[in-house]
Amino acid sequence: MSDVQIINVELGLRRYPIVIGAGLLGSAFDLGEYLVGSDCLVVSNEIVAPLYLDNLRANLPDKTISTMELPDGEAFKTTDTLHTVLDKLVEIGANRDTTVVALGGGVVGDVAGFAAASYMRGIGFVQVPTTLLAQVDSSVGGKTGVNHAQGKNLIGAFYQPSVVLIDTETLKTLPERELKAGLAEVIKYGAIADIAFLAWLEENLDALLSGDAKALAYAIERSCAIKAEVVAEDERESGRRAILNFGHTFAHAIENCLGYGEWLHGEAVAAGMVMAAKLSEIDDSEVKRLQVLIERAGLPTAAPDIGSSRMLDAMSRDKKVRQKEIRFVLLRALGDAFITADVDTDRLKELCEANG
Amino acid sequence: MSDVQIINVELGLRRYPIVIGAGLLGSAFDLGEYLVGSDCLVVSNEIVAPLYLDNLRANLPDKTISTMELPDGEAFKTTDTLHTVLDKLVEIGANRDTTVVALGGGVVGDVAGFAAASYMRGIGFVQVPTTLLAQVDSSVGGKTGVNHAQGKNLIGAFYQPSVVLIDTETLKTLPERELKAGLAEVIKYGAIADIAFLAWLEENLDALLSGDAKALAYAIERSCAIKAEVVAEDERESGRRAILNFGHTFAHAIENCLGYGEWLHGEAVAAGMVMAAKLSEIDDSEVKRLQVLIERAGLPTAAPDIGSSRMLDAMSRDKKVRQKEIRFVLLRALGDAFITADVDTDRLKELCEANG
Repeated sequence: MSDVQIINVELGLRRYPIVIGAGLLGSAFDLGEYLVGSDCLVVSNEIVAPLYLDNLRANLPDKTISTMELPDGEAFKTTDTLHTVLDKLVEIGANRDTTVVALGGGVVGDVAGFAAASYMRGIGFVQVPTTLLAQVDSSVGGKTGVNHAQGKNLIGAFYQPSVVLIDTETLKTLPERELKAGLAEVIKYGAIADIAFLAWLEENLDALLSGDAKALAYAIERSCAIKAEVVAEDERESGRRAILNFGHTFAHAIENCLGYGEWLHGEAVAAGMVMAAKLSEIDDSEVKRLQVLIERAGLPTAAPDIGSSRMLDAMSRDKKVRQKEIRFVLLRALGDAFITADVDTDRLKELCEANG
Repeated sequence: MSDVQIINVELGLRRYPIVIGAGLLGSAFDLGEYLVGSDCLVVSNEIVAPLYLDNLRANLPDKTISTMELPDGEAFKTTDTLHTVLDKLVEIGANRDTTVVALGGGVVGDVAGFAAASYMRGIGFVQVPTTLLAQVDSSVGGKTGVNHAQGKNLIGAFYQPSVVLIDTETLKTLPERELKAGLAEVIKYGAIADIAFLAWLEENLDALLSGDAKALAYAIERSCAIKAEVVAEDERESGRRAILNFGHTFAHAIENCLGYGEWLHGEAVAAGMVMAAKLSEIDDSEVKRLQVLIERAGLPTAAPDIGSSRMLDAMSRDKKVRQKEIRFVLLRALGDAFITADVDTDRLKELCEANG
């Protein structure tokens, strides 16, 4: 086992560690310590389970392990899928000593986490994210939920895991398109909060794209550290946490209009970040700098051909809407994001057209 | 407007008042102050809405009010009903400024509360309970949720309202059977935590049964005060809060086996309390004292004819089960409850038979 990095999400009594390392799943790291009792339900999916379930079992030798596989993809992040998890918990006689272990990407983590939050009003929950996107974003911070036909993540809960276990080895089996999509969220952290990290990403993007383990581990660590700090400050997104949604008002509208899963979430975020940067009052050179990095990562930089009226309509249903105003995360400069409802509406409409 | 009593549930930043008085709904009490923003969804049911919705509207003159009516009864406390509320929130374009107002009994409050907890991971929530049971129990303390075919309240959340508004006038239209069912929970507070209150109930039961406003107001106030104190100490039921479940392990099994709504919740609790008292190592005279009071309230004092094996099976799925052991709330003495898994199993089986 190589180096292990631990980042703590400081939430008082609900403080928990994010543990990052290569080969952690099959290693001496004792995940069992973070289970409430002697039994758990591992929720995974049809792609990930055949690859990593045996490793996870080996890590929990003394536990009673039930398993279930969800269908793969954002299109299945629904209340129907949620109810299959809840029914499974009933079937295995789960109680408040049971822990739900999410082994997979963002969909698995979000659905399993909401099931853990809702079953008996909350049972144990552990995140073992296996995609880059889940490792740097969705597994950290306690946002769980499912989509509604009318909007992404419209139904859910804030529910923190007791540990996030990130085995960077799992990225070796991650499809290239998903690795790139995960990099969109990594780039986001640089863009909103850490210009030095953005510069590091510019330097090391090729290594990341080629799957360099050391580079990936650093990118994950830095991303988790930024997210942990923001979440600790504002767990329930009453203020600053919303900066983590940079690009997401656009992204959610794109995903909602195209149908979930057509573009990967990270791809929609990539395009959304460029759109948000263009809506910001920053130097063209800064917009260009972000756009170039996103392009180099093989990610889209403009909206698909949806039409601005549908995009704007979808945005008006965003969770960040307050007092009927759509709120955007914009940049004061690269590395410095803020939240506002005061945007140039003509410019916004223009940006919502394909290649706007 | 007569006297108004205010009891605060002390939960730090999420502290909220329970406001109790006759005629509060149609009065100068400004409920609007407790709404997050300018719009709300009033969730009521087909029985309560025609009686009190106009009063509630009059109390919120400056707000945009959407309304919906749920079907009446515990049989509708389901995920299907929950989704009709969530769909309604989507339909009205609800966002984090929206407040869900529950106007009705326990089913309305539990379903509406879980919808408020889940929609966008939590929006505003206000309780306006109109049954005695909801006023003294389900509206206070933040337990929300729905039933699963396999168990009561298996799916839900801890989610506190910003205010509980109790207009005791609403009890004037409450059917006698429901008033009696509510008294079961009132008697519970005396039995678990306040022998003086139990003695007061013995003195004043006839007044309560005849709908005496002053007696009912005091019974509600005392019940809420005991519940508020227990909840403030242990919001998420990791310990002492479980004493509020006195009689409920039996009650949930009865309701689950009979089908929800066959016996009212309070009726099942009444029988469950006598069963729990009989399982406790207390004087027969104390058991008898509780049983007589419950009988005088016109409530059942033994299990229906379900059979002990079905009862025990249903109990094994109770939320209070830990480490495979069914946990019971028993009495050290009247007015002093505790939690234990150590019970006389032969006696338990006997009690689970009808008239055991």
